[in-house]
Amino acid sequence: VGVLGAGQLGRMLALAGAPLGITCRFLDPSESTCAAAFGEHVSSEYDDSGAIERFCGEVDVATFEFENVPAETARAVGERIPMRPGAESLERTQDRLSERAFVRDAGARVAAHARVDDADSLDAAISEIGLPALLKTRRFGYDGKGQVLLHEPSDVDAGRQLAGRQPCILEAFVEFEREVSIIVVRAEDGACATFPMTENLHAGGILRASIAPAADSGGTGDEARRIGETIAERLGHIGALCVELFETARGLLVNEIAPRVHNSGHWTIDGARASQFENHLRAVCGWPLGPSEAIAPSVMLNLIGEAPAASDILSADPAARVHLYGKSARPGRKLGHLTVVDEDREALARRVRALAGLPGVHRESALAAAERATVS
Amino acid sequence: VGVLGAGQLGRMLALAGAPLGITCRFLDPSESTCAAAFGEHVSSEYDDSGAIERFCGEVDVATFEFENVPAETARAVGERIPMRPGAESLERTQDRLSERAFVRDAGARVAAHARVDDADSLDAAISEIGLPALLKTRRFGYDGKGQVLLHEPSDVDAGRQLAGRQPCILEAFVEFEREVSIIVVRAEDGACATFPMTENLHAGGILRASIAPAADSGGTGDEARRIGETIAERLGHIGALCVELFETARGLLVNEIAPRVHNSGHWTIDGARASQFENHLRAVCGWPLGPSEAIAPSVMLNLIGEAPAASDILSADPAARVHLYGKSARPGRKLGHLTVVDEDREALARRVRALAGLPGVHRESALAAAERATVS
Repeated sequence: VGVLGAGQLGRMLALAGAPLGITCRFLDPSESTCAAAFGEHVSSEYDDSGAIERFCGEVDVATFEFENVPAETARAVGERIPMRPGAESLERTQDRLSERAFVRDAGARVAAHARVDDADSLDAAISEIGLPALLKTRRFGYDGKGQVLLHEPSDVDAGRQLAGRQPCILEAFVEFEREVSIIVVRAEDGACATFPMTENLHAGGILRASIAPAADSGGTGDEARRIGETIAERLGHIGALCVELFETARGLLVNEIAPRVHNSGHWTIDGARASQFENHLRAVCGWPLGPSEAIAPSVMLNLIGEAPAASDILSADPAARVHLYGKSARPGRKLGHLTVVDEDREALARRVRALAGLPGVHRESALAAAERATVS
Repeated sequence: VGVLGAGQLGRMLALAGAPLGITCRFLDPSESTCAAAFGEHVSSEYDDSGAIERFCGEVDVATFEFENVPAETARAVGERIPMRPGAESLERTQDRLSERAFVRDAGARVAAHARVDDADSLDAAISEIGLPALLKTRRFGYDGKGQVLLHEPSDVDAGRQLAGRQPCILEAFVEFEREVSIIVVRAEDGACATFPMTENLHAGGILRASIAPAADSGGTGDEARRIGETIAERLGHIGALCVELFETARGLLVNEIAPRVHNSGHWTIDGARASQFENHLRAVCGWPLGPSEAIAPSVMLNLIGEAPAASDILSADPAARVHLYGKSARPGRKLGHLTVVDEDREALARRVRALAGLPGVHRESALAAAERATVS
């Protein structure tokens, strides 16, 4: 399997594929990547046609771990070998404006938003949407990058600067009760392995903790599943897809679609029988999908900016599942994650609290996740 | 971590180590090995001192996946970097005669046996032990190789040939009710993570299926655990160790000690929270050990000689856990294994039966394992 991008998602794909006899080859412009230890790495810019040729040789099917791969690269690869998911999934989701139009067409709701083509059109958008609002670049945003929160009129200057550089959308600030996500893996024949809804805690625009399955008293999980599966179907998507949602007083709003394996599904490596990575590869290879139910309640904690030594993690909780990505430390960088799986929700919460003080773990998010994990 | 040997056990060590941030380097004389895709491979004979030097550079600690590594190689590595388990564990278990003496010293029982230094001493041994008996080479035997079953006086000629080539032992043929094994992982501080006793089914001298936890009505599991932990302690062993036992009408007899991760513990990858591979690495690195209890009843089926395509396995059981080693097919060769984990013993048996007809699976052993799996 050829993988566009060779970060931690590529690494976890390679590790999930190894027992299945799947060998991964990566195309990524970085010289040193954390996936390269587990597959061949073609180190090249995405627009180098010779590199694309080398990447495609001997590869049966290609996929991506990174949705901001240039659409032309995806198309060039897709002309040589099957590309799953297809270019449709990439193109529909790379631009926030067309993504939102697509979501509405699929029958799901999004926050009120307006297009902002340049600095001058920002004022009109503000009169339409009101403040507070989020100004987001239409393309290439992730982990809160390419976003400005406009609280009051004095923030508008910063907004004009962003909008002057790139096409944006202005989106009404959503008062949500919680953030959840749903991960659907769709096979070629339309069968879906959909993991239980996950609750996500962010800080500084970065995911810090996930709780799975998310507490679900009112059928929200079923609704999220329906939304995720409908979107996957409408895209003709093959492979994993994550829909991030806001749960509001008025129901679920789609915040974003990631047409790939997703950080909020990392708990599935330890908390489900066949992880999002394994199921993604199985879909991409045209094989039957595996079980996607949760084995037991799980909490995932991201390690951001710094990572504790494995021995320190295991001293704090010998049963913690440790995932270090082999990346060098840098502020804001995802360096690893921990998963705690426990049948007993009180024990789960206690164990998560014991990890909250570790370097790289966002303490408040971990404590909040422990609290949330006790709610079924 | 440096690993002597680079077969499937090395491969599974590397895959278990990757999430913990452990990188493996292998020393193995084969040119192409199935572990090399997941770690650096120093391809060299075990007695090449330059290669040993290269192997040891940058490596924090060494271990082995193969107990027939020459003791001198182990010693040469151990002089440069910590070697875990130590040379003691290798030396005591490489020779069947000294292994049996050691087991008796540790308070456990072995089958009646006699030393056979050459062809001429076979007759004396036969008069002592009687027939039927097994003649086994003292060193380098595995998977039934280097063994001759002497049923009646006419078999003795074949025995004389084997004994003429290598020092042997003659062992009384044991009428056993079943074969079981216990895997102990011992840490530097003496703490043990001991997995539940496993029942093993052999055919043609090769392990075909394991059932874990083994049915245990009379405290046999506790006795096996005591034997395993005592042996590990007496060896000052650090890391995984497997004791293969015969359950007889008169109690447990130790058949063999493997001072390493073992095929009968492969179910722990999917059926326990922290596998034998992960716990071995944690012991070797001096880290706290992880949980070793079974998540649910499991059956492991070896794929010998030929391996089905992953898609065929997953069509037969989408929830089967597939482990293919990336080796080329050859009669008698271990090419992979499958694990079925299921809370429901009847469902477990049904699922195992559905896999019994796959190429590489030993049909009779799989059907027998399904039967045994329904007994708790």
